[in-house]
Amino acid sequence: MTKVGLFDSGVGGLTVLKELIAAMPHKSYVYFADTARYPYGGKSQETIIRYSLENSNFLLEQGVELIAIACHTATSLALHELQKNLNIPILGVIEPAVEKMVATTKNKHLGVLGTRATIASGMYQRKLLEKLPDATITACACPLFVPIIEEQITSPEIIKLVVKETLAPFKGKSIDTLLLGCTHYPLLQKEIQEEMGPHVTLVNPAKTFAEMLQKHNLAKSSTPELSFFVSDDPERFRAIGESFLGISMPHVKKV
Amino acid sequence: MTKVGLFDSGVGGLTVLKELIAAMPHKSYVYFADTARYPYGGKSQETIIRYSLENSNFLLEQGVELIAIACHTATSLALHELQKNLNIPILGVIEPAVEKMVATTKNKHLGVLGTRATIASGMYQRKLLEKLPDATITACACPLFVPIIEEQITSPEIIKLVVKETLAPFKGKSIDTLLLGCTHYPLLQKEIQEEMGPHVTLVNPAKTFAEMLQKHNLAKSSTPELSFFVSDDPERFRAIGESFLGISMPHVKKV
Repeated sequence: MTKVGLFDSGVGGLTVLKELIAAMPHKSYVYFADTARYPYGGKSQETIIRYSLENSNFLLEQGVELIAIACHTATSLALHELQKNLNIPILGVIEPAVEKMVATTKNKHLGVLGTRATIASGMYQRKLLEKLPDATITACACPLFVPIIEEQITSPEIIKLVVKETLAPFKGKSIDTLLLGCTHYPLLQKEIQEEMGPHVTLVNPAKTFAEMLQKHNLAKSSTPELSFFVSDDPERFRAIGESFLGISMPHVKKV
Repeated sequence: MTKVGLFDSGVGGLTVLKELIAAMPHKSYVYFADTARYPYGGKSQETIIRYSLENSNFLLEQGVELIAIACHTATSLALHELQKNLNIPILGVIEPAVEKMVATTKNKHLGVLGTRATIASGMYQRKLLEKLPDATITACACPLFVPIIEEQITSPEIIKLVVKETLAPFKGKSIDTLLLGCTHYPLLQKEIQEEMGPHVTLVNPAKTFAEMLQKHNLAKSSTPELSFFVSDDPERFRAIGESFLGISMPHVKKV
């Protein structure tokens, strides 16, 4: 039986789990959301490494055999440290998304959206340039996207204006491929696509991550299980989480 | 020598410290910002009580003789628990703000702004009704105000639209006194006043808190000291913090 562990600071990584379940419904998954210390986006590398190690150790105690970091900030800042310190495969969302972008772009004008910490880490930009040294990359932090989604802001005027002003740095740059470099952003995919126009391909790392994991040829679980753990209030997590996961969520346990 | 301890989840409480320094420059202050677990606004009571106890114990180790909870969420959810468990005076921002509102209103139509957790706790609403049972209170969570300030969003269009839509529930309610029930909100005071109109009095709890503490007749410190501690990156704290504090910040120590 293969058990896949995922962790994130909150509900965002559920967009990754959603794609994993769609691609590989016969696996068991353990999802840990570190909601008591949410969000990671504005925190330092040292702190994020410490939290990521603690989260991974918790998942190991649950018997997982592979850990997916379902969080771009933690992948950017802590992936290598986790790979150095733990004895099971640790996979991040970045590599497969970078490969997809390289395979998709025709004019090598690429855009990257992310949290302040992800963009400042330069991880996506570096990885893209390794594969495509002559690419022109525009990276852009979107500090209000996560609060808008987390706080379930529904005002179309606010969403439209924030998306428009945030994406302004991409105007006139002929970008043909844009990365949604934060687990939350697929929930704004429609508005981002409308603002960028139909000629821009959006890359959703949750999808490319699921495609990569499929290739790992994991064993099927005899009885697939889905477990959810949080470090703060389970009810708030469940209430917001179901819109990210797209299916109803079983019992959520506080640890 | 009297040392006053303050804690908050982040930079917000610096608006309280700013008013304390203005009112009582001859005291020593120790400020602890729990930035590694910031923000508290959306977290559960149990978690916020645990964090508040840990923060208070850290301040006690620094030799403070009085603790000011410079955070509305922690005051709403953890003040009584701290008062029960600790042997020094613990003061919150709520009581003096409530007294000011009661003294200010003429028509007893009151408005309260706060984070989701502060508003949901009902603490301000209950305290106001205890003193003014026939008041009409409209309370309103402002989930995007803190992200706008923390992320240093400068777009006047976004700020204006978010303030307008957030304050919409107050329209037509004849409110004459409005509480800025979160330490960050004084930084949006100008925009909030413009949206509400000149006939509405804004109550800033940082100011009323400093006025109350002045009455405590604390001893002067022979050599007033100002110390800052954080649980995450000191530089980010200092960069944002100085706009909250209004003066330049000495060394910030990570604990």
